[in-house]
Amino acid sequence: MTTTTPTAPDILRCAYMEIIVTDLAKSREFYVDVLGLVVTEENDKEIYLRSLEEFIHHNIVLREGPEAAVGVFSYRVRTPEDVDRAEEFYKARGCRTERRKEGFVKGIGDSVRVEDPLGFPYEFFYEVEHVERLAWRYELYTPGALVRLDHFNQVTPDVPTACAYMEDLGFRITEDIQDEEGTIYAAWMRRKPTVHDTAMTGGDGPRMHHIAFATHEKHNILAICDKLGALRLSDHIERGPGRHGVSNAFYLYLRDPDGHRVEIYTQDYYTGDPDNPAVHWDVHDNQRRDWWGTPVVPSWYTDASRVLDLDGNIVPLVSRTDASEMEETIGADGFSYTRREEGEDSMPRWKQGEYKLGHQM
Amino acid sequence: MTTTTPTAPDILRCAYMEIIVTDLAKSREFYVDVLGLVVTEENDKEIYLRSLEEFIHHNIVLREGPEAAVGVFSYRVRTPEDVDRAEEFYKARGCRTERRKEGFVKGIGDSVRVEDPLGFPYEFFYEVEHVERLAWRYELYTPGALVRLDHFNQVTPDVPTACAYMEDLGFRITEDIQDEEGTIYAAWMRRKPTVHDTAMTGGDGPRMHHIAFATHEKHNILAICDKLGALRLSDHIERGPGRHGVSNAFYLYLRDPDGHRVEIYTQDYYTGDPDNPAVHWDVHDNQRRDWWGTPVVPSWYTDASRVLDLDGNIVPLVSRTDASEMEETIGADGFSYTRREEGEDSMPRWKQGEYKLGHQM
Amino acid sequence: MTTTTPTAPDILRCAYMEIIVTDLAKSREFYVDVLGLVVTEENDKEIYLRSLEEFIHHNIVLREGPEAAVGVFSYRVRTPEDVDRAEEFYKARGCRTERRKEGFVKGIGDSVRVEDPLGFPYEFFYEVEHVERLAWRYELYTPGALVRLDHFNQVTPDVPTACAYMEDLGFRITEDIQDEEGTIYAAWMRRKPTVHDTAMTGGDGPRMHHIAFATHEKHNILAICDKLGALRLSDHIERGPGRHGVSNAFYLYLRDPDGHRVEIYTQDYYTGDPDNPAVHWDVHDNQRRDWWGTPVVPSWYTDASRVLDLDGNIVPLVSRTDASEMEETIGADGFSYTRREEGEDSMPRWKQGEYKLGHQM
Amino acid sequence: MTTTTPTAPDILRCAYMEIIVTDLAKSREFYVDVLGLVVTEENDKEIYLRSLEEFIHHNIVLREGPEAAVGVFSYRVRTPEDVDRAEEFYKARGCRTERRKEGFVKGIGDSVRVEDPLGFPYEFFYEVEHVERLAWRYELYTPGALVRLDHFNQVTPDVPTACAYMEDLGFRITEDIQDEEGTIYAAWMRRKPTVHDTAMTGGDGPRMHHIAFATHEKHNILAICDKLGALRLSDHIERGPGRHGVSNAFYLYLRDPDGHRVEIYTQDYYTGDPDNPAVHWDVHDNQRRDWWGTPVVPSWYTDASRVLDLDGNIVPLVSRTDASEMEETIGADGFSYTRREEGEDSMPRWKQGEYKLGHQM
Repeated sequence: MTTTTPTAPDILRCAYMEIIVTDLAKSREFYVDVLGLVVTEENDKEIYLRSLEEFIHHNIVLREGPEAAVGVFSYRVRTPEDVDRAEEFYKARGCRTERRKEGFVKGIGDSVRVEDPLGFPYEFFYEVEHVERLAWRYELYTPGALVRLDHFNQVTPDVPTACAYMEDLGFRITEDIQDEEGTIYAAWMRRKPTVHDTAMTGGDGPRMHHIAFATHEKHNILAICDKLGALRLSDHIERGPGRHGVSNAFYLYLRDPDGHRVEIYTQDYYTGDPDNPAVHWDVHDNQRRDWWGTPVVPSWYTDASRVLDLDGNIVPLVSRTDASEMEETIGADGFSYTRREEGEDSMPRWKQGEYKLGHQM
Repeated sequence: MTTTTPTAPDILRCAYMEIIVTDLAKSREFYVDVLGLVVTEENDKEIYLRSLEEFIHHNIVLREGPEAAVGVFSYRVRTPEDVDRAEEFYKARGCRTERRKEGFVKGIGDSVRVEDPLGFPYEFFYEVEHVERLAWRYELYTPGALVRLDHFNQVTPDVPTACAYMEDLGFRITEDIQDEEGTIYAAWMRRKPTVHDTAMTGGDGPRMHHIAFATHEKHNILAICDKLGALRLSDHIERGPGRHGVSNAFYLYLRDPDGHRVEIYTQDYYTGDPDNPAVHWDVHDNQRRDWWGTPVVPSWYTDASRVLDLDGNIVPLVSRTDASEMEETIGADGFSYTRREEGEDSMPRWKQGEYKLGHQM
Repeated sequence: MTTTTPTAPDILRCAYMEIIVTDLAKSREFYVDVLGLVVTEENDKEIYLRSLEEFIHHNIVLREGPEAAVGVFSYRVRTPEDVDRAEEFYKARGCRTERRKEGFVKGIGDSVRVEDPLGFPYEFFYEVEHVERLAWRYELYTPGALVRLDHFNQVTPDVPTACAYMEDLGFRITEDIQDEEGTIYAAWMRRKPTVHDTAMTGGDGPRMHHIAFATHEKHNILAICDKLGALRLSDHIERGPGRHGVSNAFYLYLRDPDGHRVEIYTQDYYTGDPDNPAVHWDVHDNQRRDWWGTPVVPSWYTDASRVLDLDGNIVPLVSRTDASEMEETIGADGFSYTRREEGEDSMPRWKQGEYKLGHQM
Repeated sequence: MTTTTPTAPDILRCAYMEIIVTDLAKSREFYVDVLGLVVTEENDKEIYLRSLEEFIHHNIVLREGPEAAVGVFSYRVRTPEDVDRAEEFYKARGCRTERRKEGFVKGIGDSVRVEDPLGFPYEFFYEVEHVERLAWRYELYTPGALVRLDHFNQVTPDVPTACAYMEDLGFRITEDIQDEEGTIYAAWMRRKPTVHDTAMTGGDGPRMHHIAFATHEKHNILAICDKLGALRLSDHIERGPGRHGVSNAFYLYLRDPDGHRVEIYTQDYYTGDPDNPAVHWDVHDNQRRDWWGTPVVPSWYTDASRVLDLDGNIVPLVSRTDASEMEETIGADGFSYTRREEGEDSMPRWKQGEYKLGHQM
């Protein structure tokens, strides 16, 4: 007897995330009044939001619920048949699937939701309601205008296993963080030709690390910080702004009122060629996460959002057993590849024998 | 018998700083190759540097010496007679002065240097050699082009005393940091109509906290960080980039190879009216130093450059006895006015009972 | 018998312009809804507007009237006594003056208005109501935020005569446009240390050429164009955006609903030293008005707003008799110093014998 | 007997253009010294250039020849077999093809060149030498850094015919310019998910209209203009900078020393979904080519570069017989959809009965 591996669906891109929030009004203030995402439609239980260059119905569904969590990571596929392929792909792996011809949320048609091998709720759809692409509507732009959904980022204990599954699903690795013993700490994976549609970050999982929106320019990201300061909401800024080593993009990490992490991101690079050179970063390179060497705050490593199964229950965590990036890179002394490898001679004279500038008490 | 208080000289602006460096070649790499300051002239003992919009001979003199220090803070006055007035102003205060008709450095004529009441070496001059203002020479611009000297910043133990003297000298306070008991932690003072030509920062002094150059736009400052990252010199970044609360400017702090601190700064506001409203910040407002609430690294509070007397000897330090801003604002818990004053109810739900995001181990 | 020349008032800066508009509601749409100037107060006859970093009551008064015109060019002086000095300065020149202790408009106290030797209505005041400086209120910023009043620009037939009077009044020339025969086509004059508080442009006068507001960065100016395009109001864009040769600033010229010209301007240079080098541009240098060589549209040379006398009547025009910059520089062939002086050899090969790229039919 | 249509090759993206220049040293100054493209390799006959984020050998080959022309438009395909498919695709259409396993230029392997149905020299390859992607090498960035090849633009007489062929080849239309009678004036077509890999512009053809490189931000484009002004090379600026209506990108058109047109371009939008909404612009909409309503200079419509056949001879022109966009939109009066359609009532009051602001003599 022979078995055939089902063909992977042809995934276009990350499309939207369903986010469970505990206070819809407070979340609306954050996503609409502060960040300026556009309301496609809303009622007293859910709000559908999109970015300014989007033409599908939404990039986020905020849904009020008893506990902050992520309801689904949703991807758009190339054809209606790719929804069938997605269903078969997961069934063949023994994953629970649920198909709804009318869709699970407004604005989206025939969809399949699955509990994937890593425990994440994934969705695939092709049919979608078109709405106005507001790209030319500059009278609606704010100084920090969000123009595109860029990517998701997921926390999972075993990154190599996650990558193998995602490669089967048709994703390609563009960059990763490793160490000299071959431990993989994180990997960036794409369908559309940017650095990623999602990334796999090593840690107790399944959890959602962040969802990322793109701006046109770097000053747009700075303007978001300035506005948060003016509103005395600067506590929502968790990390950045800064320049990533991985992806070469300019970034900012915010936390929404429930603690869900939102990245604002701009200017990574084209990755669409099949032989696009993958970039491998050493976990001890202190410029991998921030090109300027700014330390990563611990909460960025430790905190992430829980995810729901198809019944709406929180999925239990599996612990990471591989080495922890945070422990490898924020230790007694803190920092820096260059110093450990190259010794004190390579340090500026005025700080030999000292902690890195920027080290916190 | 009556005494008359001498008239203060009419000071135009901060003009240049003489900086003693221990390795001239290494400093040249930093100021010329990395930061792109323009060499007006140089020899094996000193380098004269200017910014792109400057038309006087220099904004920095780098001079090689046995110990990193600051040789002089130099101000330009409105007329040749104002040099006389400066001399008389300090003599009347019993300060040591030295007048040189031919100037102390190349490119500058008749000057007086003084040991001021706070222990700082100050210089005043009018005569100066004009050089080409390179403002229109865009073929010379780098992505992080420095276009103007903006200000000095000095560390002195008793800020109110320092302010009283500086106001006699004709400076005006534009902003300061205080607490509810009236302690002054720092004050910003101007002659030209920007937020400052110099600032007085409370601490053991006399020391030089930083010298600041202006760029045209914020992306120019980010480009300097990107370049430092590319050159694997990110350890030179001490703090920022960020938005100041005080001054509302966008900033970055670097440390040169000797540890002298250089700020890159852009976009404060016009302050030239005599009734310009001074802004008073509460030392417990965690957005005063960084509008986005990013914690100030301790080295930024503790480190500063020693200064020389007119004989070239390091001036001894006097300790601050007033409260320390660092101790007031980086304590056991760390941060934030809003929390201490307003209580936990004002905090985002996901972090009540937690440290501020961004808190470092 | 001896006469003494009165001392000039110590002028701080250009402060506000009173602009007569024919449809207050339409003008409000332009200045408030499109440009984002802040309403300090308004009624059905007049609107008081200010820029985001301003702390005095207003930078523009829009007043409804039967004919589009300029009511006054108003400058702030350093002290209350400087208002007296201004009054004496103009009386000594035989100019009509009117003093009102309670001020002519809301928010401004003791003022003198004059009909100046060039026929312009000028005002001088010190007393002014302070309002909130909105510099830190980033939640109010639009992508094209106007942060400061930068300068006025006036049309007058005899530029050298105008300059001599303005220098008596304490202004200094920073740049001008000349030809080899000594004709002066325009001159830029400052009190605050920017390139200008006002400029004198040669042409039939007295007329108001434009009023200019500053943004922080160049992208803010581009955002104003994008918004005008989105609102299908691009006809309001007259010239630019571009880089000036004169002033080195980035610019855009708009026309309001009555045709009053508004410049948006950013990033000129410090000019506060008494020996600041003046820049003299050749009228045949095709980069003087636009550094990129973009032709100036004829309306920019020909159109300007009429001004009112102290009785509110339109001031008659005096014709320019000196050479016209437009005729000198937009002729049969159009353009360019380089070509006329240096000949065809200096032209790119592909266009020898051709008009300049950018030449319009 | 049945015939099967050959499968189109799976084209990834526009990859490079071979440009014949008449003075290699002069062209090097323009592309390397002014624009900052990176030399991968060069000899006295040809220069291989790439953009900063590119990892394939080159994006431009400059080759010295007796007459300015374009040697080839080259596309990268997904697999080696797609080169075979390309060869078959064109052979089936009766087009001349030439296959070289060793490639036609350095750095590229097995390639096929064709004389396509429109008379253009097209090339397809997969094999290519990888070189360093300089994305993180910020020490090499100039203020106007070119980071990616974005697209080609071709002039051809019959746009609908051209589109039909290109759609067979796998391209998709993202935007076009039409009139109410169905005339197509231009169409934008993509493989990678940007607005285009090439565009078909109506006119006498085959000719090359331009090649376009992307920058990260708008200020990078302005910096190129500033540098050209500083070098007194502003005659190389033909049109812009401005905001396109079509594509929503920010743009600048330059002419190289031979008159070849180079666009600098940034910030169009994602188009990768199969149902991406195409945008159809009315040829009478004066914001279609420039969102700010700035008139298009006639040379931009009339000038373009000739192309070579596979023997290196200039391909003869076929004249356009459809209506001309230039004649439709730059006529006796000049401009603007709004006015012609909506009448004078929609015009600003101050210009009724007048030409559009910006109209040139």
